[in-house]
Amino acid sequence: MFESAELGHRISKEVWDREVPPLREALLDAQYDLATARFPVVLLVAGVDGSGKSETVNTLNEWMDPRHIQTHGLDEPSDEERERPHMWRYWRMLPPKGKIGIFDGSWYTWPILERAHGRIKTSELDQDMGRIARFEQMLIQEGALVLKFWMHLGKEAQKKRLKGLEKDPLTRWRVTPRDWKHFEMYDTFRQVAERSLRATSTAEAPWIVVEATDPKYQRLTVGKILLERLRARLDQPAPAAPAVRTLPRTSLDSVNILRALDLTKRMDKKDYEEELLTLQGKLNLLIRHRNFKKHALVLVFEGVDAAGKGGGIRRITQALDARTYRIQPVAAPTEEERAQPYLWRFWRNLPRKGKVMIFDRSWYGRVLVERVEGFCSEADWQRAYSEINDFEDQLVRSRSLLLKFWLSISQEEQLRRFEERQATPFKRFKITDEDWRNREKWPLYESAICDMLERTSTEIAPWTIVESENKYFGRIKILKTLVQRLEDEL
Amino acid sequence: MFESAELGHRISKEVWDREVPPLREALLDAQYDLATARFPVVLLVAGVDGSGKSETVNTLNEWMDPRHIQTHGLDEPSDEERERPHMWRYWRMLPPKGKIGIFDGSWYTWPILERAHGRIKTSELDQDMGRIARFEQMLIQEGALVLKFWMHLGKEAQKKRLKGLEKDPLTRWRVTPRDWKHFEMYDTFRQVAERSLRATSTAEAPWIVVEATDPKYQRLTVGKILLERLRARLDQPAPAAPAVRTLPRTSLDSVNILRALDLTKRMDKKDYEEELLTLQGKLNLLIRHRNFKKHALVLVFEGVDAAGKGGGIRRITQALDARTYRIQPVAAPTEEERAQPYLWRFWRNLPRKGKVMIFDRSWYGRVLVERVEGFCSEADWQRAYSEINDFEDQLVRSRSLLLKFWLSISQEEQLRRFEERQATPFKRFKITDEDWRNREKWPLYESAICDMLERTSTEIAPWTIVESENKYFGRIKILKTLVQRLEDEL
Repeated sequence: MFESAELGHRISKEVWDREVPPLREALLDAQYDLATARFPVVLLVAGVDGSGKSETVNTLNEWMDPRHIQTHGLDEPSDEERERPHMWRYWRMLPPKGKIGIFDGSWYTWPILERAHGRIKTSELDQDMGRIARFEQMLIQEGALVLKFWMHLGKEAQKKRLKGLEKDPLTRWRVTPRDWKHFEMYDTFRQVAERSLRATSTAEAPWIVVEATDPKYQRLTVGKILLERLRARLDQPAPAAPAVRTLPRTSLDSVNILRALDLTKRMDKKDYEEELLTLQGKLNLLIRHRNFKKHALVLVFEGVDAAGKGGGIRRITQALDARTYRIQPVAAPTEEERAQPYLWRFWRNLPRKGKVMIFDRSWYGRVLVERVEGFCSEADWQRAYSEINDFEDQLVRSRSLLLKFWLSISQEEQLRRFEERQATPFKRFKITDEDWRNREKWPLYESAICDMLERTSTEIAPWTIVESENKYFGRIKILKTLVQRLEDEL
Repeated sequence: MFESAELGHRISKEVWDREVPPLREALLDAQYDLATARFPVVLLVAGVDGSGKSETVNTLNEWMDPRHIQTHGLDEPSDEERERPHMWRYWRMLPPKGKIGIFDGSWYTWPILERAHGRIKTSELDQDMGRIARFEQMLIQEGALVLKFWMHLGKEAQKKRLKGLEKDPLTRWRVTPRDWKHFEMYDTFRQVAERSLRATSTAEAPWIVVEATDPKYQRLTVGKILLERLRARLDQPAPAAPAVRTLPRTSLDSVNILRALDLTKRMDKKDYEEELLTLQGKLNLLIRHRNFKKHALVLVFEGVDAAGKGGGIRRITQALDARTYRIQPVAAPTEEERAQPYLWRFWRNLPRKGKVMIFDRSWYGRVLVERVEGFCSEADWQRAYSEINDFEDQLVRSRSLLLKFWLSISQEEQLRRFEERQATPFKRFKITDEDWRNREKWPLYESAICDMLERTSTEIAPWTIVESENKYFGRIKILKTLVQRLEDEL
């Protein structure tokens, strides 16, 4: 894979002087067109040490309007980053639509290093590359143009480069003992990089290997390819949504997981109040347990309108210190959020260790309201199931505790609660025309909910279905489940 | 994921009697439409032991025209199969366009069993599932409708089923000690199956989990879903090829891997003849070496017309017993081959252990002639690079020795050879008008060849580029490379 980048590619000063000015002009034009075209460009600059990655990144910033470029160097992860799933830092860095995000170092860096140092196995490297391929696929399906450059130096060329830098007093500081240590591992790195590139070179986002012996050749090549791909994408008509067949739920009997629930389960007020106090006491102690600091707690509440999500959440937060938790009510996305992949607004709100994040509605909106109301294409929500499972897998692997509650009530009980809300002045704000409209789509929602439970109730992140016809019963079930889970984990 | 299939779904005899006759009729209609619609249906029936998989498969065969169904039970692999890559048996079984292939057991069976028994790690299971997901993606992109049914029984239901079968003297034989052993491992199997299904439930080929407690419910559900999906696909207009941007090769200098070759390398006739004899002698011994029986040898010869592929191949086969090797000249695909994914014709020709298969041109036609001549869409050849890398990865993991030779000559030397062929009566058959036409497309081929070498020269299966301007030099380099590789491996 690297042979073509070991041929001693170079260009003369004349070519450089002739080619650069028109390239800069064309890049600037493309950049301004991008601002209105509303898709993001994700540009990775990866490669071996001393291959001029940051110089190339600087050149791109110099050639273009840096106000519309977001450049990210890969430093050591911050404490903020260390306490969240590995990919969190990259999600924070994703460019919004209309902008170019340049990554000097990327999500490839860590797995390649880990494998080269023998800290993970080949099968684990493949696991990581599979996750990365799915992540990039998601970016592409959300509209991003993904360009991946691998800066390559042959072994001899790298040695020469490091020695050259060392000889010059002005650049000596740039060569560290770590660089020489990595050089000794050249063959290992080459092999691991080759395997990683092979696993992630897809038709939509192939790696572009660029020889790095001649900086002029290297920078001009990157600039020209960026221009070509960007221009091609800008001039291309918006792609039609891929045709995905509607998959009707064949139901031979009228049984489904919602209808099979026993909604007559109830609890009387006295028992409720007693148990509530006990459970809230336990919860309070558990959240202050010293082992809790090793985890982040993520709670997801979903359910039809008036199912009791707010009430259930309040019974939890009553037991918590206000500095510990945050509630994220999920409504229509903001402008900033609409300029990003749909999961972005949930990634940005992930809690640190020792903290509790409560989502009042969540990423499941994609396969519920967005599906039913047609806010996204069928292809979009069809792929969302596995994207969500991948997302939750990352949460769980970072030792977050994830609990998902589906609060279920009957259509009749919903009507009763709607009417009660309308009749009670201080509850009236809770009921809108939209709630009544949603109610008419009950059967469509039922299908969507059943699909959601089937596709996303996994061993690593199962749904807890809460019979909420009786509020007391529902709230106690939520608290019990939460307390039980914390007791198991801590 | 399995909760919806543990609700005790069942249908009455009345529903069955009412629904089955029209379903059968509609299935038969769809089957006949399929014959002319020219896409294959790949239908997997997987699931826990005793979940009525084969009964369901039998029912489908009974309901439809079995002449257009190919049913495959998963027996122990034959010795033929054991000596080839794991997926070879399934490639052999793929249904051609217009037919339905039903798999009772599939490519999922082995990895799930291996993981449940702890013989592979979770990361290795994920590796396997990644490979499977890519394989199925390839089937879909080649046009197949892929339907995956998972037959599920809850733990109690499975116990009851096994006991029931055991009590009846007519079915007692069907319950083996292995079934009970697997039952003891129920929770493990469930967990492994869940992980596998989650990793491979894609938007295009999601798993469909079907409860298996009531055979009538189970069979009717499978039949109805098959009909729905098949009908939806038949009624859908042929999908437009996905838009993939043309990726021009930006070349700033005129250097590329072909032009960088030193084609002046030569060898005189006397040295050639001597070395030829020595190398052929070594090769003969190596192929008869007892360790050679552990491997299959696959040789790929590619190069422009008149580059000397035939001559190179003959110098190898001269050293071999005719029972050991086969040469597969690759020309236009046959009708049968055109009804299958493009790699099928190469899979079918993979050698057993201890045998040598020589491909005179190969699967690389996809990214060479098919690309340049427009015989496939750009999206098709763009994805072919990673499909080919996956294919070769499977060869190498099954301990096949794969050597790929690119024979390179200059455009001038090609002209000289063409003219010589035309002037020599016994060589004239080797030169056609097409050769002259191809020659005019030299620059397009050069681009395609450079891309191919860059994308598919991998650590596991590197290309050997052979400077063939001088035939003697080229032939000796081929033989030397081959002998060296065999000496290293045996």
